[in-house]
Amino acid sequence: MTTSPVIRICLTPALYPIYRDDNSIVVVVDIFRATSAICTALHHGMTSVIPVAAIDEAKNFPGNGYIIAAERGGEVVAGFAYGNSPLSYRNNPEIVGKKLVLTTTNGTQAISAAKDAAALCVGAFSNISALSSWLLNQQKDVMILCAGWKNRLNLEDTIFAGALTRMLLNQGFVLDIDSDAALTAITLYEQSKENMYRFLEPSSHRQRLSKLNLEKDIEYCLQWDTTSVVPVLMNGELKNVLSKL
Amino acid sequence: MTTSPVIRICLTPALYPIYRDDNSIVVVVDIFRATSAICTALHHGMTSVIPVAAIDEAKNFPGNGYIIAAERGGEVVAGFAYGNSPLSYRNNPEIVGKKLVLTTTNGTQAISAAKDAAALCVGAFSNISALSSWLLNQQKDVMILCAGWKNRLNLEDTIFAGALTRMLLNQGFVLDIDSDAALTAITLYEQSKENMYRFLEPSSHRQRLSKLNLEKDIEYCLQWDTTSVVPVLMNGELKNVLSKL
Repeated sequence: MTTSPVIRICLTPALYPIYRDDNSIVVVVDIFRATSAICTALHHGMTSVIPVAAIDEAKNFPGNGYIIAAERGGEVVAGFAYGNSPLSYRNNPEIVGKKLVLTTTNGTQAISAAKDAAALCVGAFSNISALSSWLLNQQKDVMILCAGWKNRLNLEDTIFAGALTRMLLNQGFVLDIDSDAALTAITLYEQSKENMYRFLEPSSHRQRLSKLNLEKDIEYCLQWDTTSVVPVLMNGELKNVLSKL
Repeated sequence: MTTSPVIRICLTPALYPIYRDDNSIVVVVDIFRATSAICTALHHGMTSVIPVAAIDEAKNFPGNGYIIAAERGGEVVAGFAYGNSPLSYRNNPEIVGKKLVLTTTNGTQAISAAKDAAALCVGAFSNISALSSWLLNQQKDVMILCAGWKNRLNLEDTIFAGALTRMLLNQGFVLDIDSDAALTAITLYEQSKENMYRFLEPSSHRQRLSKLNLEKDIEYCLQWDTTSVVPVLMNGELKNVLSKL
């Protein structure tokens, strides 16, 4: 008899020490916008993404061969040409063949918190089906780690966690005894799936981005299955483990 | 122009340091079963409840004039006659006129975490309408602190938080910018309100209590408005600030 792999959800990095499980593959999710941007960058020709927690750390990389990107509070940090807008990495000849050094408010902090996991990959609506298939092939327990907003939970990452959990449950994964976070996320996903864009209207980060005129980013980050890249952390770099679409 | 009072939700005590706001009235909630038991004990003749975090601390109180109660992991701690079953405090002549010293797995830990708040009160479905009226009269910001389960969020406390938030929003309270926890709780409440008992069937704590043959406790804890007591912490004791039904 084989044991079904378990899926768990951690709704913010602040709770990761409580939920962590060293045998699980951790899926880091920051829909608006770090993990969406990472998938886009790898899909559109970048060779890897190097997530760093601190802005100073990002500055240490040379300009040659690297694109250095920094975002805080939704905006590109002064002195940097790139932030975490996925659209800036789409059909952009300047970035092809280069490595992206990325530091953001939430997403890269969550990656840093879970960097010692058995394996770490990155999820977004853009790669949800590819990611789900890849996770199914691994047949290991999965922990979805939502980046949230400054250690608070947010709606969009929770909804994504619910959607991915739903997909994995349909493919033989099971919940564990402490599954209330997963049941919460699935409920949010079920309620939002008909019109996620509208459901998120009152959410805090949606409003924050709208004020920064980032509506196009929001729409883009909510599109499903625009890529089949699955970014996996290897020696400090996120690299695609599947062939591109 | 007066400012509308704000309502916030903190989904587990582990997040309290991130969400805390020293000007708010904190409402501690542990539906299964500490805060339900506290309301029941005060409604049925106990003069106050003294919440303590540690079992050893509870043992320091004399038997005379006090009922000492301890629960861990859903069960009465060995050597104690009482735990946190609300039913044990209902129509029980032994307890009338006495003080309850109570230590539990989650609820009294959450009270302890928030004991320095501007004011601290206790909520359960049994007193939700009385509590809502009392909070409305205070016209201060409110923080609902869910006790959860060992620092993880749980469904029943989150649903209660959503229900109380919905009531307060209807009475002029507003959400703040970081309201995603509140929107999550409201969504869960809206989805569960038709049949909360059934909605909670897959929840972890519901299953835990079912295994301990505590179905009657669950049913009791989900009944609305069986009391009008509002327990408020004053000098380390929870006392009712409203007259009883």
